[in-house]
Amino acid sequence: MATVTTLDPKRRKPDTNALDTLVALVAEDLADVNDIIVNRMQSPVALIPQLAGYLIASGGKRLRPVLTLAAAKLCGYQGETHKPLAACVEFIHTATLLHDDVVDESDLRRGQASANAVFGNKSSVLVGDFLFSRAFQVMVEAGSLDVLRILSNASAVISEGEVLQLITQNDTATSEEAYLEVIKAKTAELFAAACRIGAVVAGRPATEEDALRSYGMNLGIAFQLVDDVLDYSAAQARLGKNIGDDFREGKITLPIVLAFRRGDDEERAFWRRTMEDLDQGDGDLERAIALMAKHNALHDSVERARHYVSVARDALGLFPASPVKRALLDVLEFVVDRDY
Amino acid sequence: MATVTTLDPKRRKPDTNALDTLVALVAEDLADVNDIIVNRMQSPVALIPQLAGYLIASGGKRLRPVLTLAAAKLCGYQGETHKPLAACVEFIHTATLLHDDVVDESDLRRGQASANAVFGNKSSVLVGDFLFSRAFQVMVEAGSLDVLRILSNASAVISEGEVLQLITQNDTATSEEAYLEVIKAKTAELFAAACRIGAVVAGRPATEEDALRSYGMNLGIAFQLVDDVLDYSAAQARLGKNIGDDFREGKITLPIVLAFRRGDDEERAFWRRTMEDLDQGDGDLERAIALMAKHNALHDSVERARHYVSVARDALGLFPASPVKRALLDVLEFVVDRDY
Repeated sequence: MATVTTLDPKRRKPDTNALDTLVALVAEDLADVNDIIVNRMQSPVALIPQLAGYLIASGGKRLRPVLTLAAAKLCGYQGETHKPLAACVEFIHTATLLHDDVVDESDLRRGQASANAVFGNKSSVLVGDFLFSRAFQVMVEAGSLDVLRILSNASAVISEGEVLQLITQNDTATSEEAYLEVIKAKTAELFAAACRIGAVVAGRPATEEDALRSYGMNLGIAFQLVDDVLDYSAAQARLGKNIGDDFREGKITLPIVLAFRRGDDEERAFWRRTMEDLDQGDGDLERAIALMAKHNALHDSVERARHYVSVARDALGLFPASPVKRALLDVLEFVVDRDY
Repeated sequence: MATVTTLDPKRRKPDTNALDTLVALVAEDLADVNDIIVNRMQSPVALIPQLAGYLIASGGKRLRPVLTLAAAKLCGYQGETHKPLAACVEFIHTATLLHDDVVDESDLRRGQASANAVFGNKSSVLVGDFLFSRAFQVMVEAGSLDVLRILSNASAVISEGEVLQLITQNDTATSEEAYLEVIKAKTAELFAAACRIGAVVAGRPATEEDALRSYGMNLGIAFQLVDDVLDYSAAQARLGKNIGDDFREGKITLPIVLAFRRGDDEERAFWRRTMEDLDQGDGDLERAIALMAKHNALHDSVERARHYVSVARDALGLFPASPVKRALLDVLEFVVDRDY
């Protein structure tokens, strides 16, 4: 009887945490980025650094700015401009998290009370706006119209994706394609932009820019796919998120798309009641997880993620071997194999 | 017995509406700006143009983009770039309105149901984010780092002002200075930016840029002061807003700052109960308006606005006489004399 499930019983554990290895390779730059972040979230209005600091300090992995730094390193960049730009990526990410938590009415974020739960929805909306504006101020100071173009495009796509997700939220008829469109927009686009601007600051040719964009896009898709699986997995508690958050919100993710399509009429009635009507009682989450297990929905969602990981791996084929390339490739495995 | 009050019984009515005259002077450009607005708020996610269009089409005065067009005309600008930039100003304004209504929990905007009342808070937050991102995309296309700097700074200041307003919201100890700081940030800064970028696109010297910034800043302060007075005036119903909206929210505006400071202990107890505790009953709004009348709080708030209007008038002193200069000066009178 499956109440919780692991991702893949056959998976090999990497010897070291590949993300830690990548972070170590850009550690000096990242320390500077952290200084920029702390410095540029200041405001005479004290609530702004308080609220922003609450979220920014609360244990985020800095995955997106790390990608910008690593991409710049992969491109042999010797300057300093990648650091404020990496801070901008984190600001935009933090602004979207703040607005997401308001839209999702979340109480928890990374295992602690979400900013909106502590400071209120109103402050979260406005401080999100501030961080977003501040990101554009910092980009203007950095003086790169190309990066401004990339990140303003990414921001518009992210909000389109969030609106799309809001519309499809409780619709069990959501197709795999529609789901992918949402996660590409709301997650993968910023990963893609974060990686791409590493090539842009380094002044590398379009082929390398495209390659890094593709790496980021496909990594982002895989990352979100696995994140959505983890919401139903044993490891979720260790992630510090409630198990079944997505289920309770009626958020249609790939495991549900697959279980719904592979289920019989009685099962589909169950999904409609719980996801569309949000009529949920004791044992429903357990039943949802059991149905996912029955139809291999979690396992196959991770298999889908492996496809995008493969595309991301080949995207980096152009770059010569280097420790940072090795680490970027290992992060791909880490993303699908992590259980935390 | 004053239940409602007019701004100033002695005021002279201008023969024509000065704002209409200004709009007429830039009518051709404004038609193009409207086309850009409609065109650039499109998205494959249909809810976005629906929601954005609901607000943008719902009878806004387009005051801010008109100021950009008029400032460019005053500077003798012959190009086209002021049009997309004017559209950006309106996008940023619309984004802040959407987020404002969520934060204020408003049900009405310009006499009809506010976007959040129709489409929900969640969509309003996300479509606000989209319009904001879109504004930056359009600015990047226009290619002016100077304008990007001005509008990203303005956006950051606006959100700081909104947060500051949120903090001071129910505090009767708010000083006139603190109130001014809020309205400078949340309203006047965008007026200032809108005017200033007219000089920037025209490539005019810093003195003209500063003059237009000052005109816009002081016009914006006067505009918001009068707006806050109108919330307690007979004309309010014609504006399509509920009379006493600010009162019900406990929003501390200058009329209340003045009435509180000029009142006796019993009156201050009334303001604390109604504004801080939000403990309001039948007749309280009428009492608030009567206390404002007793202490000339509305009249003197308009007098404060006249001060800023005078500064704005002198700011344009450098520019040679022209129909658009005349209209910009007349708009100043209109702003303090309007009762709608």
